[in-house]
Amino acid sequence: MSDAKINITLPDGSVKSMDKGATGMDVALSISEGLARNVLAAEVNGEIWDANRPISEDATVSLLTWQNEGGKSTFWHSSAHLMAEALEALYPGVKLGIGPAIESGFYYDVDFGDQTFDSENLDVLENKMLELAREKNEYIREEISKADAVAYFKEKGDEYKLDLLEGLDDGTITFYKQGNFTDLCRGPHIPNTGVIKAVKVLNIAGAYWRGDENNKQLTRLYAVSFPKQKDLKEHLELLEEAKKRDHRKLGKELELFTFSEKVGQGLPLWLPKGAMLRERLEQFMRKAQVKAGYSPVITPHIGNKELYVTSGHYEKYGEDSFQPIATPHEGEEFFLKPMNCPHHCEIYKSKPHSYKDLPIRYAEFGTVYRYEQSGELHGLTRVRGFTQDDAHIFCTPDQVKEEFTKVIDLVLYTFKALGFEDYTAQISLRDPDNKAKYIGSDENWEKAERAIIEAAEEKGLNTVTEYGEAAFYGPKLDFMVKDALRRSWQLGTIQVDYNLPERFELEYIGADNGRHRPVMLHRAPFGSLERFVAVLTEHCGGNYPLWLTPDQIAVLPISEKYADYAHEIFSLMEENDIRGFIDHRDEKIGRKIRDAETKKIPFMLIVGEKEQEENKVSARRHGEGDLGSFTKEEFIALFRKAAAIN
Amino acid sequence: MSDAKINITLPDGSVKSMDKGATGMDVALSISEGLARNVLAAEVNGEIWDANRPISEDATVSLLTWQNEGGKSTFWHSSAHLMAEALEALYPGVKLGIGPAIESGFYYDVDFGDQTFDSENLDVLENKMLELAREKNEYIREEISKADAVAYFKEKGDEYKLDLLEGLDDGTITFYKQGNFTDLCRGPHIPNTGVIKAVKVLNIAGAYWRGDENNKQLTRLYAVSFPKQKDLKEHLELLEEAKKRDHRKLGKELELFTFSEKVGQGLPLWLPKGAMLRERLEQFMRKAQVKAGYSPVITPHIGNKELYVTSGHYEKYGEDSFQPIATPHEGEEFFLKPMNCPHHCEIYKSKPHSYKDLPIRYAEFGTVYRYEQSGELHGLTRVRGFTQDDAHIFCTPDQVKEEFTKVIDLVLYTFKALGFEDYTAQISLRDPDNKAKYIGSDENWEKAERAIIEAAEEKGLNTVTEYGEAAFYGPKLDFMVKDALRRSWQLGTIQVDYNLPERFELEYIGADNGRHRPVMLHRAPFGSLERFVAVLTEHCGGNYPLWLTPDQIAVLPISEKYADYAHEIFSLMEENDIRGFIDHRDEKIGRKIRDAETKKIPFMLIVGEKEQEENKVSARRHGEGDLGSFTKEEFIALFRKAAAIN
Repeated sequence: MSDAKINITLPDGSVKSMDKGATGMDVALSISEGLARNVLAAEVNGEIWDANRPISEDATVSLLTWQNEGGKSTFWHSSAHLMAEALEALYPGVKLGIGPAIESGFYYDVDFGDQTFDSENLDVLENKMLELAREKNEYIREEISKADAVAYFKEKGDEYKLDLLEGLDDGTITFYKQGNFTDLCRGPHIPNTGVIKAVKVLNIAGAYWRGDENNKQLTRLYAVSFPKQKDLKEHLELLEEAKKRDHRKLGKELELFTFSEKVGQGLPLWLPKGAMLRERLEQFMRKAQVKAGYSPVITPHIGNKELYVTSGHYEKYGEDSFQPIATPHEGEEFFLKPMNCPHHCEIYKSKPHSYKDLPIRYAEFGTVYRYEQSGELHGLTRVRGFTQDDAHIFCTPDQVKEEFTKVIDLVLYTFKALGFEDYTAQISLRDPDNKAKYIGSDENWEKAERAIIEAAEEKGLNTVTEYGEAAFYGPKLDFMVKDALRRSWQLGTIQVDYNLPERFELEYIGADNGRHRPVMLHRAPFGSLERFVAVLTEHCGGNYPLWLTPDQIAVLPISEKYADYAHEIFSLMEENDIRGFIDHRDEKIGRKIRDAETKKIPFMLIVGEKEQEENKVSARRHGEGDLGSFTKEEFIALFRKAAAIN
Repeated sequence: MSDAKINITLPDGSVKSMDKGATGMDVALSISEGLARNVLAAEVNGEIWDANRPISEDATVSLLTWQNEGGKSTFWHSSAHLMAEALEALYPGVKLGIGPAIESGFYYDVDFGDQTFDSENLDVLENKMLELAREKNEYIREEISKADAVAYFKEKGDEYKLDLLEGLDDGTITFYKQGNFTDLCRGPHIPNTGVIKAVKVLNIAGAYWRGDENNKQLTRLYAVSFPKQKDLKEHLELLEEAKKRDHRKLGKELELFTFSEKVGQGLPLWLPKGAMLRERLEQFMRKAQVKAGYSPVITPHIGNKELYVTSGHYEKYGEDSFQPIATPHEGEEFFLKPMNCPHHCEIYKSKPHSYKDLPIRYAEFGTVYRYEQSGELHGLTRVRGFTQDDAHIFCTPDQVKEEFTKVIDLVLYTFKALGFEDYTAQISLRDPDNKAKYIGSDENWEKAERAIIEAAEEKGLNTVTEYGEAAFYGPKLDFMVKDALRRSWQLGTIQVDYNLPERFELEYIGADNGRHRPVMLHRAPFGSLERFVAVLTEHCGGNYPLWLTPDQIAVLPISEKYADYAHEIFSLMEENDIRGFIDHRDEKIGRKIRDAETKKIPFMLIVGEKEQEENKVSARRHGEGDLGSFTKEEFIALFRKAAAIN
């Protein structure tokens, strides 16, 4: 039986025959030694395993390195164990809570007992971790009985792990050991500590055990680790840059928005500059949408309970949402609208439709309200009220592909105009093994899925296809956009929906004179204007595209003597739809330039004696410096070129 | 004592010495017989009296004719008594409820007992009324004791009048008699029935006694009467025209808006054409406001209870309003915002201000929600949610006049662009005898009142000044606009406010380095976009100004053969920002023209063989007919001229 063979199917579809009991690492070695050096874990039949865990049956295997999300998170989880080992070495008797990988790094919750730990101890901890990493200790998986596991932590005196053990069933428990450290852990882990070459503890916070404020507060150590010192350096630089570009900070500096306790948390108040920016974005989208055949509609921000019972939102957004609004006399109940689609369905229903009318595309900058706990709120990215650049397309099943293609065009046009160049499309389809759980006919699903795949292909998009990730009511396509700090944002979702047309009993009369259900597409290129402005602000660090930025020019007279000429220049700019202001302050020109640079004004027009005599302006570009001297017409032409939306 | 004299002060300030006991009619006769013939009642010290009631002390007297609201309503009230007399003559034993004058006519609530009354009986009733009117019976006022009054109606067997008498105090009761009819009535009335020359019963409805559905349902007869037959004819024509122009009817025909029971009553859904119209109005105002130095802001549609406790709205809009929105976990309470001002105050407060920053003008198309009982709802004029073209100006007391003047300019510009030409300004000032009930310093009130009066005068407005009509927090100016059907609408209120700056503790640092309270002006030229669109639609009968109308042109190809040329024309129009559609239907050109006329499309461009050969278009104007043949450039020039906002 030791000669038994198993078939390993690789992601490219090729099949390797390996000895039964071969590991992911063996598969890697069979391909190349270079690959083996980089392998952190293996995905076996969709589950992440230790790279050195034996595989005993035919399986689909994908090898995970630092380049894969799964590889990264395994690396960080193992780094958390390394941190725990270092803590035990430095602080004998320390007790440990949980230590998971998170989106960008990992943490460990620690009970230091009587010992003190603060930011001055971070260096020592980091160094100890690196010292232990250099020992290249293997992470060893061990299945253990519950009794033995309890006995181990009882002896060690770690009440938190004992608490965790209580919730586990015998026969499912595993320990992981590396060096002198043993942890209760489901795994998986990287092969050994040797690949952890750089570590940084970023933050110390308090966290109640199990998130319950009746429990003891532990010390949560947030950290990040990398296989190369260079990666850490880059990461810290990005963090530094992200801090500078934080939209909450820039929002304040550029006077875009504010919050008021009295109005309520998570309910942004858009200040003039921010409102102008947002209105310009709306105007941009409105224009693009009219061109693409959308019709605007406007609907109220509340709806009767009946509407949400019909749509199913009542069931979904029940107790965890803003509560109903009662009326004084007539016993009606209204809800703040969490979505615009039910209102648009009612508009569709307000008159009969023929197949000749389709597609119908209703667009609305619709403000919706969704309750979030105050702890979850964050600047403009997580709010309690936001405005979607929403639209709903009602079409025949045969029109789905063309409509999908047109929406992709609109989304790509938007990304280009706003300077987002790095994106992939994630296509979410049905679980082919469980078709019963989806609403809508098999035929329509197949048509729509094929439509999405073909549309994405024809547009030359980089795509990732996820089976089983579709909503129960239809397949979708999301754009994953990388910003200038290499963070990924989900923007521009296009969602097929067979559910709402069913629930609202929407119909059109077909060419066959029979009644048919239209298909509905939901789509929002920006998503929400609040979140989009936040993402855009951080992406461009407040240096918005010229066509969009609130103040495009600042006219800077060298002294009061040139106030009239400055005014003449400014009026001419206004007539040419160039916006900005005159800095009339009694300040030195150097100071005026510095202030305009701080405010990120794209163009500064400096006017003094020479400019006035020659009837010219001296122009500076933000971040670039002096551009030289121009006639007014020359500057306007230069500006127009720079401000065009391509 | 019979020689005693009293002084009668007339509206022009002149004083007449009259015998004590002189009546309003005597005053009229002392001026001219012509006036006396037209006098219907007299306003004595602000109270409307019978023209023949003796005046026993010095008084300010104003004579009321058909031209005054007070004269008209007295005329209609007397007509109600005439109707009651006719009813008693025609239907012996009929019982009478109440019979007041209303905005446009009068009604009487009648219990016909076992007798039937329906629309076939109207002629007879009208004729009977005119017959009685010709008798020129005087309306005679009689003070009567409660006991005598009760005895009278007991004998007559009129339970409704007895019910009314129960609520009255002895010593305050008067009867009015004319001809064979006696009514319990406070008055006043016209001298005699002879002036009632034309009568029309317009409508028969049911009405519960005292509006309580537990009481008996009476028959309510709505009617109108006039001193001239010609006036009735005109009135009926206007009613007919009003029916045709009803914005609810046109809103449906032009597909501007709809309502859905599921979304909720009084919550309009704007259909594409209506949304475009509304967005264009917003765009118009936005542009005008930016030019006038306003800054846009955007605020949420809800606010924490604290906000409205501070503003005082919580107290005001309590139980009769939309009820609070609870949150699931944090015990907060939010309200749908009934007004935008509290949010704008919070924006003002978000940073410190110097007198140099003032005036600050925050503008927002803010949607607010106010609960109305379902019976009160009416199309777009009375809704539960509406969007104001709101703005709040924060300025120093010295800036009030200039700001007021600028707002008047904006309002007049708006009226002109939308075709409202007939308006007066109503100025509401303090009650000079009761200054204590107003908030804000005496000095600031005087400054503001003077500012409003001067601003209105300098702008050459026709004004009416009402003392005591100011809100407790400041004086205001309303525009009363007459529409094409001679109905009056209140539009474009400008309100001074000393209250909210106080409640929100708003401040600016003055030139003296001290802290000062700004003055706040509220203003909304359109008022609400919903109501404004309704008024405008009825004013222009759906023939909107060309710059505003949803579809400006319809391109009508004579047959399919000219589809390409029609498309070429349409594309050129689109490039020139001229909107509309091509009528591609397989219909005769006559039908296409008729349909475009019905849809009130301003310009029709007819294209056939001749037009295509000559590279021209044949143009028709809605309601005018054929304009002749034009080159494309000629038509565009013609169109531009017609569409300009002057």
